[in-house]
Amino acid sequence: MLLWSKVYIDMSKSISLSILTQRFHQVLPEEAVLTNKEQLYPYESDGLTAYRQLPRLALLPDNHDQIKAIINICREFQLPIVARGAGTSLSGGALPHAEGVLLNLAKLNNIIEIDPNNRTARVEPGVTNLAISQAAKPYGLYYAPDPSSQIACTIGGNIAENAGGVHCLKYGLTVHNVLALKILTIDGEILELGGKYFDSPGYDLLALMTGSEGMLGITLEATVKLLPHPQQKKVLLAAFDNIEKAGNAVTGIISEGVIPAGLEMLDNLTIQATEQYCSPGYPPNAAAILICELDGFEEELNSQIILVKKILKDCQAIEVRLARDEQEAELLWMGRKAAFPALGNLTPDYYCIDGTIPRKYLAHVLENINGLSKKHGLRVANVFHAGDGNLHPVILYDANASGELETAEELGGEILELCIKVGGTITGEHGVGVEKLNQMCVQFNEAEITTFHAVKAAFDENALLNPGKAIPTLHRCAEFGAMHVHEGKLPHADLPRF
Amino acid sequence: MLLWSKVYIDMSKSISLSILTQRFHQVLPEEAVLTNKEQLYPYESDGLTAYRQLPRLALLPDNHDQIKAIINICREFQLPIVARGAGTSLSGGALPHAEGVLLNLAKLNNIIEIDPNNRTARVEPGVTNLAISQAAKPYGLYYAPDPSSQIACTIGGNIAENAGGVHCLKYGLTVHNVLALKILTIDGEILELGGKYFDSPGYDLLALMTGSEGMLGITLEATVKLLPHPQQKKVLLAAFDNIEKAGNAVTGIISEGVIPAGLEMLDNLTIQATEQYCSPGYPPNAAAILICELDGFEEELNSQIILVKKILKDCQAIEVRLARDEQEAELLWMGRKAAFPALGNLTPDYYCIDGTIPRKYLAHVLENINGLSKKHGLRVANVFHAGDGNLHPVILYDANASGELETAEELGGEILELCIKVGGTITGEHGVGVEKLNQMCVQFNEAEITTFHAVKAAFDENALLNPGKAIPTLHRCAEFGAMHVHEGKLPHADLPRF
Repeated sequence: MLLWSKVYIDMSKSISLSILTQRFHQVLPEEAVLTNKEQLYPYESDGLTAYRQLPRLALLPDNHDQIKAIINICREFQLPIVARGAGTSLSGGALPHAEGVLLNLAKLNNIIEIDPNNRTARVEPGVTNLAISQAAKPYGLYYAPDPSSQIACTIGGNIAENAGGVHCLKYGLTVHNVLALKILTIDGEILELGGKYFDSPGYDLLALMTGSEGMLGITLEATVKLLPHPQQKKVLLAAFDNIEKAGNAVTGIISEGVIPAGLEMLDNLTIQATEQYCSPGYPPNAAAILICELDGFEEELNSQIILVKKILKDCQAIEVRLARDEQEAELLWMGRKAAFPALGNLTPDYYCIDGTIPRKYLAHVLENINGLSKKHGLRVANVFHAGDGNLHPVILYDANASGELETAEELGGEILELCIKVGGTITGEHGVGVEKLNQMCVQFNEAEITTFHAVKAAFDENALLNPGKAIPTLHRCAEFGAMHVHEGKLPHADLPRF
Repeated sequence: MLLWSKVYIDMSKSISLSILTQRFHQVLPEEAVLTNKEQLYPYESDGLTAYRQLPRLALLPDNHDQIKAIINICREFQLPIVARGAGTSLSGGALPHAEGVLLNLAKLNNIIEIDPNNRTARVEPGVTNLAISQAAKPYGLYYAPDPSSQIACTIGGNIAENAGGVHCLKYGLTVHNVLALKILTIDGEILELGGKYFDSPGYDLLALMTGSEGMLGITLEATVKLLPHPQQKKVLLAAFDNIEKAGNAVTGIISEGVIPAGLEMLDNLTIQATEQYCSPGYPPNAAAILICELDGFEEELNSQIILVKKILKDCQAIEVRLARDEQEAELLWMGRKAAFPALGNLTPDYYCIDGTIPRKYLAHVLENINGLSKKHGLRVANVFHAGDGNLHPVILYDANASGELETAEELGGEILELCIKVGGTITGEHGVGVEKLNQMCVQFNEAEITTFHAVKAAFDENALLNPGKAIPTLHRCAEFGAMHVHEGKLPHADLPRF
């Protein structure tokens, strides 16, 4: 099946660009068909800029009929299609295909309905994440998932990558907040999946579609859950003289039944970087700090704060600060929010890794990352969603120094494999894209990868939708020499005991 | 592909029972292979007793190797396999196949691990829902989904049907509480899906498997989320002199941002029945009552109760009672919990329907159900999860009265189609099974049903796993004369305006 699709895609190369352009002009206005290199450069890469590729052409439809017509032409010529929202993916999910079409969905940016009774919003794929919350604000509602790119990133991209954010510990990832999708299949059919309700009969294609990285269908519309704004928020900072204690505090808070709205960790390198960048006033010598946001009713918060302070003390925090007002709370968050540009100031280039581990291995994994950092001679900063075990080690390197990019990629790969080794996974919120194809071979066995391909073929037999992303071929895994491991299959001596 | 499997299954008929028995005795102890009619009768039906079918034989493995060996033999002889936990399905999900094997997983009932740090339990499929909470109790934790059959039903069955319960409004369905699954495929391969973390790379096969009614694989192990017991619970009862006001109160509570742990509605017929059955002391003349359970920290509860009472008053509740202690709370719940046996006392037989609608249509749909009840001349009682719009109309009939079963089924079908018409769906928590195959043709269009079959074929090409359940053939839909409707595709004049 996959070989067959190879033949088709190779065939598509033989169709001249002028014939393709002519065909697309029949269904789109002239300005919606981009073919010049200058017009195509903006699409050359997404947020993972180490990978660059120009598409053959880029298309900017502004309605469903145009998109259907595009899909029909792509099917006719067996042209690969890469759909794109704002291109903020950090895993290369929106990297163009050299032989294919870049389908820019940014013009589909209507908010179709805000339904306060059912607390839902129905939106087009090009609507930005933040725009949904803005539209819901008059009703006292908002959309919970908040990736740090939320001002720019689109809901279509969020769905493709199953995006998260600081608050997904309490409010879930995109998959937990999408109620319905209208999907256009590669066959030009419409699938309406889910609705304004919990359960759905038949197989859960709604969840299957979410996080499928544009490989199973094109999102034309999404209905998402809206939440009422919490009555109040409280923000705490806690500092520790070693990372293990900070890790224990995270486990302690969660296992006492407190679910913070956000629970973030910054290590010393990140603390130093943010201090230089925007002076949030974090304790400069702390090995790690935690920022803990609690939300809810005031009375509930007061009792939670007492409990959290006690846990922090039990875990030997060297300092605990409670923001007394909104301004102080914003100051505590400021360094965290500026962490990436702050780290960017320390280094010509950085590479942000995204893996998730069971919380109890936090200290163990951070210690091992430190070892890998020394082994490869590259600094690694850690700033991440500690509450849900979602790590973002940031590797500092210099792309102009010979071999450093390759070393950074190697180090990143080893960190992800370490995540798998402790029973974790190679993504928390960024997706696999082109970045983590090799690590998929470590995460999954042959039967699992084969099942992924079978599911792909059930939707897109000729692999026209975002080909080459997310799921490696078995051939690639063989070449990578994958050492597939599952939790518990490794010698237990490798893991710390709890 | 489906025709092909038909040929295979027909072929399996030609294998004699004695040859099959002999083969299964090679891999199972003698007492684990049941072939006599007396031994098979207990498996004849599940909770949907209107459907009865004996399997060719029933097997009771007690470990993974035995199950793998069974699957291999079934594949060899192309024998259909129906896996079963406790057989409490209300949609016929565990109805045996006449030519096939009934695979009883009840002996796989070990709780493998309770991990309080990560708040997870790893269990075998035959563990009962309640047993998980009992095992977690020493750690102050519990498993949230609580179908009313929780004392008997197994987690394997819960996963197959994506079971819900009274508390799923706040805590989600099974799919929201399962973190990982170990699945045996029909090819004898093991898939490890998910883990002790949120996100997962690749397609979301974990969610796809949950609610797939045993048609994509056999669950060997499940890792589920545990929650800390809420600090306190409060229970309120509110009575209304018409159902519309009760419906408005439900919408009012949710849209004010209160998420009760449970929000149940009982209509007058149910109130009368429970009074006769166990005297819970509900207001006997109320058109409907709501039972509202709030949980959380005491201080939070106090402010929520003030808010909820205000909403109930605004919606013209004729009576509001707040349970002053645990004993009074239990009394308020007693009638709700006894509703089904209580209704059973009013009638020789009853048929419990399971559909879900957007909350704002509650009053409209209940009124229409009343109309359908009169049209068909059968009484319908309503007792249901109002907060998440999950209806359970209970049709009272007499199976011995000529034609009443058929009338009840027809009425049930029309109620489900009414749910679809207002943008709802044909299941809330019971699944499709054999019961709702016709309504699937109304819920989904041809492209959607075709996609379901393609997904099935990706896992189980020859349709050996629970064949004939959940997804109708296109042929059946054509025969049923399906009128596929999607929300908004019906003339809007049919729907009430809001």
